[in-house]
Amino acid sequence: MSDLPKSIRINEEGPREGFQFERGPIPTARKIDLVDALSRTGLDHIQVASFVNPKNVPGMADADDVVQGITLHPGVHYTGLWLNEKGLLRALASKRLEVTGSISLTASEKFLIRNQNRTLAENIEAQHRIIEMYKDHEVPVERGSIMAAFGCNFEGDIPIPTVLRLVQTILDLAAEHGVGIKVMNLADTMAWATPLSIRRVVGAVRERYPDLELALHLHDTRGMGIANAYAGLEMGVRIFDAAVAGLGGCPFAGHKGAAGNVCTEDLVFMCDEMGIETGIDLEALLEAARLAEEVVGHPLPGSVMKGGSLKALRAKLA
Amino acid sequence: MSDLPKSIRINEEGPREGFQFERGPIPTARKIDLVDALSRTGLDHIQVASFVNPKNVPGMADADDVVQGITLHPGVHYTGLWLNEKGLLRALASKRLEVTGSISLTASEKFLIRNQNRTLAENIEAQHRIIEMYKDHEVPVERGSIMAAFGCNFEGDIPIPTVLRLVQTILDLAAEHGVGIKVMNLADTMAWATPLSIRRVVGAVRERYPDLELALHLHDTRGMGIANAYAGLEMGVRIFDAAVAGLGGCPFAGHKGAAGNVCTEDLVFMCDEMGIETGIDLEALLEAARLAEEVVGHPLPGSVMKGGSLKALRAKLA
Repeated sequence: MSDLPKSIRINEEGPREGFQFERGPIPTARKIDLVDALSRTGLDHIQVASFVNPKNVPGMADADDVVQGITLHPGVHYTGLWLNEKGLLRALASKRLEVTGSISLTASEKFLIRNQNRTLAENIEAQHRIIEMYKDHEVPVERGSIMAAFGCNFEGDIPIPTVLRLVQTILDLAAEHGVGIKVMNLADTMAWATPLSIRRVVGAVRERYPDLELALHLHDTRGMGIANAYAGLEMGVRIFDAAVAGLGGCPFAGHKGAAGNVCTEDLVFMCDEMGIETGIDLEALLEAARLAEEVVGHPLPGSVMKGGSLKALRAKLA
Repeated sequence: MSDLPKSIRINEEGPREGFQFERGPIPTARKIDLVDALSRTGLDHIQVASFVNPKNVPGMADADDVVQGITLHPGVHYTGLWLNEKGLLRALASKRLEVTGSISLTASEKFLIRNQNRTLAENIEAQHRIIEMYKDHEVPVERGSIMAAFGCNFEGDIPIPTVLRLVQTILDLAAEHGVGIKVMNLADTMAWATPLSIRRVVGAVRERYPDLELALHLHDTRGMGIANAYAGLEMGVRIFDAAVAGLGGCPFAGHKGAAGNVCTEDLVFMCDEMGIETGIDLEALLEAARLAEEVVGHPLPGSVMKGGSLKALRAKLA
């Protein structure tokens, strides 16, 4: 019980996840409104856009305009996503984002082939070039990431030794290029994790690499998101990706209507109630979640925005 | 990690919770269809109706017809709910239900007054009469229940000593009347629990009463249902109330659109994936969940029925 961390950090990925996934079109100004609302919540990491080919992801055609339109709040790290040098250059050209690199491997070869048209070996080769690209542009590389670390809709269960091998491969890649990995992100890309597999995978990685800071990227497609986050907290994980109102979903996961990331405000609610600091004002975040529903024009999966926070109830009762 | 129980028992309360809560009207034949579908899943405890005044709960006006219309499956315990002797007599008269009594106290006096127009002291007095009523009709009393054990929308947080005192009161009441309590149900009636409070309250009750079998009744209004169930599993809880597709909600809880009980098939999915036996066929249960959506005529909160089970995916990949 006392294993729970005193504080956690949340990377808000709702804008990027949501605008990428929603059928839209969503007016650029509304996207900016949502990011600005999130900036007022105390969230200090907000991923605002994905610099990808608008032919593949039409919802991101206005990524540059969104990044230029938001109001930058002091202390907030605004980040973006890209899949190649062209995208990275757009992120750098914005001059408004914190640009850091990551070394990303995928535990499932079938997913990798479907998603990026690469084998596992080709993906490792590609990472060499990506790291060199970051070094060319003086972009620090601090994060490793393993997609589909808990299972894959196309390959099935992922054995723990596979995850451990990928962690080592990322660390070897980093060492070979003289960069230092600060955080290793384990992503449940297709929502195969349960609290028990979170414990097992996180436990195995932590046992082998006790000094590596671990992060979790959780999807809620099968309703396990918050339970998995709790299992992560019990294992001492202190960094979580999350999406306001549960925006998003993985367009490549083969699910229509798949639920998105674990919902930020539900995670913040749980942490608040368990005495874990997030630095986030839940009431402001609930307002942003309701705005997210307005912006996308349909209900989103978040629960606390419907059920209401307990802090608000306690204040009314006091 | 090894604290998880080998098997659990689920009391399916979806029909009773759902038909009570839904605006309806739902045709009696459709209610029977849903109970019959649930009877084919391996669920062995199904609460099918509430024998209450139809003026207060119009959705239960056909309770007797539902009970007479369902096909009784061998090995399944069909149960009902009632609030007074009239209701109990209807349950007994059906001759189709397993009728057992419970001693039920509520941790929040404000909720009790609002819900039943009784003070805590009056409620304890009422339990004496209720136990006598059960004895008069030779109905065994085996279960204690504490409503609002984790918090109340009208009273706020519930201190753990209050819960412990109520457990003792129930045991004293039982002893005074010569009946034996086998299971003590802790109900998170208004969704105030978090995994940490589940651990604390269950832990405190278990420490004081190590031989008492504990059950959890969890609501998902704030998205914590499955995480709370997991925390209960970690504490060795082996009996859970749940509702197929997440049917239901508490009409007295002061929330419009409040989510209902923890969703049965999401709970079964989590247990399946963690190696905990439930005796339930998840695919059959998912069919029942989809039928529940059809029967009530609107989407219900269950996730696995939308995201799909992993067993089905594994079978396709094999």
